[in-house]
Amino acid sequence: MNADKRWIERVIQMAVDNVERGEDPFAALVVRGDRVVGSGINCTHQSHDPSAHAELLAIREACRTLETPDLSDCELYASGEPCPMCMGAIYWAKLGAVYYACGKADAADGAGFGDPLHSFYADMAGPLEKRSIPMRKMDSDRKLEPFRVWKERQARADGEHT
Amino acid sequence: MNADKRWIERVIQMAVDNVERGEDPFAALVVRGDRVVGSGINCTHQSHDPSAHAELLAIREACRTLETPDLSDCELYASGEPCPMCMGAIYWAKLGAVYYACGKADAADGAGFGDPLHSFYADMAGPLEKRSIPMRKMDSDRKLEPFRVWKERQARADGEHT
Repeated sequence: MNADKRWIERVIQMAVDNVERGEDPFAALVVRGDRVVGSGINCTHQSHDPSAHAELLAIREACRTLETPDLSDCELYASGEPCPMCMGAIYWAKLGAVYYACGKADAADGAGFGDPLHSFYADMAGPLEKRSIPMRKMDSDRKLEPFRVWKERQARADGEHT
Repeated sequence: MNADKRWIERVIQMAVDNVERGEDPFAALVVRGDRVVGSGINCTHQSHDPSAHAELLAIREACRTLETPDLSDCELYASGEPCPMCMGAIYWAKLGAVYYACGKADAADGAGFGDPLHSFYADMAGPLEKRSIPMRKMDSDRKLEPFRVWKERQARADGEHT
């Protein structure tokens, strides 16, 4: 059995075990070379934390372990296709590649878990003013102030380094 | 000054203050009625955690405070338009509404922060096989096993409750 296959089989088993804990059937691993550097299982129910998805937790653990937010030399293995939140975290962490066992359709047929995935992805692909959650841009004279201060600080830091 | 406006001005100031801590210029609040139940500032640099965005942290704190993953009776105020990761968390937490000061274009003009927002949203709107991060679906005979076990457990729980 090659390494990719071994990790996928392992996350599937982790997802099965997670159900016995009363949680949802999802698990993920972040692997660097042949070493697991982060591992996660969904625990949104017991933690009340809607962000406690397997992939996000595995990414956070990997970043703590490696002391960097850059996982470009790592791969993520997940029992299911990542949701938009986890996909966003995958972009920010610059994962080298993502392998997953079940797609949206499998998750939908399997137990209805694919439905939010479909609708969230579709909703986010549309314009802000048509999102299912009302989004409102509010004007403020000071809205660019955080960026101005940030650029000023960057320029100061650059000056100190030259 | 109405309440919406007051919260927006407050997150803008929080974002300004966050720059002085050496972090990125973003902040967020989750508000329920007239009470702040969660607050967050970006701290990805000092924590090495790429998921430590203001909105995600504010949502996590609100869920801890209210002991529920359901924030449908709350509103989120953010200094900048949420990224796909935070938008995903907003869907999962079912926020009642989202108010933000700077859009993608402001963030791009302001300091280049809008670029990943644009590219992540565009990338996620496309098919999996065209994503900038390679995504590979791997087959396994056991891939549906987590869902099967989950359904079995649900049926057992339903049986116990009737």
